[in-house]
Amino acid sequence: MKAILIRDGGHSAEDLYVGDVSRPEVGRGHVLIRVSHSGVNRPDILQRQGSYPPPPGASPIMGLEVAGTVETVNSDENLWTVGDRVCSLVNGGGYAEYVSVDARHLLPVPRGLSEAEAAGLPEVCLTVYANLMEHGALQAGETVLVHGTNSGIGSMTVMMAKGFGANVIATVRGAERAAWVKGLGADHVIDTRNTDFVTPVKDLGGADVVLDIMGGDYTPKNILCLKHRGRIVQVGMIRGNKTEIELPRLMQKQGILTGSMLRPRSADEKARLSAAVAERVWPLIEAGAIRPVLARVFDAADAGAAQAYLDSGQHTGKVVLRW
Amino acid sequence: MKAILIRDGGHSAEDLYVGDVSRPEVGRGHVLIRVSHSGVNRPDILQRQGSYPPPPGASPIMGLEVAGTVETVNSDENLWTVGDRVCSLVNGGGYAEYVSVDARHLLPVPRGLSEAEAAGLPEVCLTVYANLMEHGALQAGETVLVHGTNSGIGSMTVMMAKGFGANVIATVRGAERAAWVKGLGADHVIDTRNTDFVTPVKDLGGADVVLDIMGGDYTPKNILCLKHRGRIVQVGMIRGNKTEIELPRLMQKQGILTGSMLRPRSADEKARLSAAVAERVWPLIEAGAIRPVLARVFDAADAGAAQAYLDSGQHTGKVVLRW
Repeated sequence: MKAILIRDGGHSAEDLYVGDVSRPEVGRGHVLIRVSHSGVNRPDILQRQGSYPPPPGASPIMGLEVAGTVETVNSDENLWTVGDRVCSLVNGGGYAEYVSVDARHLLPVPRGLSEAEAAGLPEVCLTVYANLMEHGALQAGETVLVHGTNSGIGSMTVMMAKGFGANVIATVRGAERAAWVKGLGADHVIDTRNTDFVTPVKDLGGADVVLDIMGGDYTPKNILCLKHRGRIVQVGMIRGNKTEIELPRLMQKQGILTGSMLRPRSADEKARLSAAVAERVWPLIEAGAIRPVLARVFDAADAGAAQAYLDSGQHTGKVVLRW
Repeated sequence: MKAILIRDGGHSAEDLYVGDVSRPEVGRGHVLIRVSHSGVNRPDILQRQGSYPPPPGASPIMGLEVAGTVETVNSDENLWTVGDRVCSLVNGGGYAEYVSVDARHLLPVPRGLSEAEAAGLPEVCLTVYANLMEHGALQAGETVLVHGTNSGIGSMTVMMAKGFGANVIATVRGAERAAWVKGLGADHVIDTRNTDFVTPVKDLGGADVVLDIMGGDYTPKNILCLKHRGRIVQVGMIRGNKTEIELPRLMQKQGILTGSMLRPRSADEKARLSAAVAERVWPLIEAGAIRPVLARVFDAADAGAAQAYLDSGQHTGKVVLRW
């Protein structure tokens, strides 16, 4: 099969090429997917650069999510049939024509969606659902603050939070993006090119949940934005791994700083999350309350360009490869 | 009545003196306590130094907890009768012969305890219960890490965690204190005069809950000590308000950094906590599983010396004033 490989010793986007490798083995409880589209994510870029080595046992090929068709099934559980149109989180190996996946991690392509759109859903839907609804324990009527809402995670957070009945304050850089985020359903959009977000958020009464991909200097500001018993859920650290915070500001509010990563979770945990997302998020997608946002679809042969485009931060929504 | 006052413009322990003031008014739903003993706490010292002004509506007199006898009752709820021996959290005003208290905040003097011992219970019991059991969500069989276990909060945490079925790793400075903490029931005691605590705690499998009065440079170390889904609950910051942490280390573990303060809580919240402590902690005290540790009892006239003693950090257990 064909797969996107990295030239020996190479770490730049230009070092990606389409090569031939053997199809993955399909272990017990697994399903082989013939991939039509592969989602492109930030960890793929880190893996290419050598700063995010695949965990033990994972495919050395990049790619954390795909959409396509069930090719073979090696499972007694009768969850899936050859020919089913599916999408799935994968434990690496998504940048390839075929990938083997734990049968419990598959999700159907939502009614009314293309496989290109579906390929960009698993990573962002599981990440946002786990962090917003589980770690963040969001309740209907609460207020969510979310940054960088042009990103895949940011835009999904706006829509999912609205879908679950929250008020949403979104930050983004630039007037054009601000208008776009408003169109996603955000109740308030703050253009951080014009203003710091702390005072506007406090003027709006603060946030019960902050879903944050920024970290660094944003974390102490997020604490200032919290309501009593508010939760900051860290899902990225674009602005830095390290952050300096003042503990009394967290304690005064009985605030919570937490976060999680998707990839290190066990297969059982991913199965549990996939089932929760199928039950609670898929209906919102099929009802049109959550609309997948495709930034751009690249040919698989142009994977390097796709990663460079994602890395440039110019996108709004998800970047996907087409096989 | 007599009360401990601070000389105009004075901020040192020598500026405390016994003066005459009028008895507090007893509002509806309140009880007047004739105080026999007043607990001495760190916030009293901060208030004396001018860095912790009493909140609006609170007594300007220091003192956050007392024991004594019910003198008058201005409440229809029949919770208390004149002559009852009680102890209570108070909203300031504890360094005096009489103090008016929300009737819902009173607790009986536990069976078998002196009023001197009881005077040191409310602040520490409510603080440790709220943070260990509610914010920390401690479950029986889990492991608690607690620092500075010669302090009132530290020693109570060791005993309460054991009382609720946890394993306890305690840190303390010095061999003598280490032996004393072992005697309180700690499963493992780390003498931080000899060794950093991170490696020993990790070797013991890590902590589900860290109850921390230290902050500063201890916070990133506490994160290193966490088990998967562990909780750090900040209740003090002896080593500094500011702390620098690495977000991925918290995210990898799905860890939680939180904390709380007792004094800013509403009267309703304190009533709820007092009831929870009466129901869940008082039986452990009356059964002898939690033994109040009195460091030293000072005459009220020596309140300055009592605060200086607490401030010196030489104590093990609670410091109390006798009227």
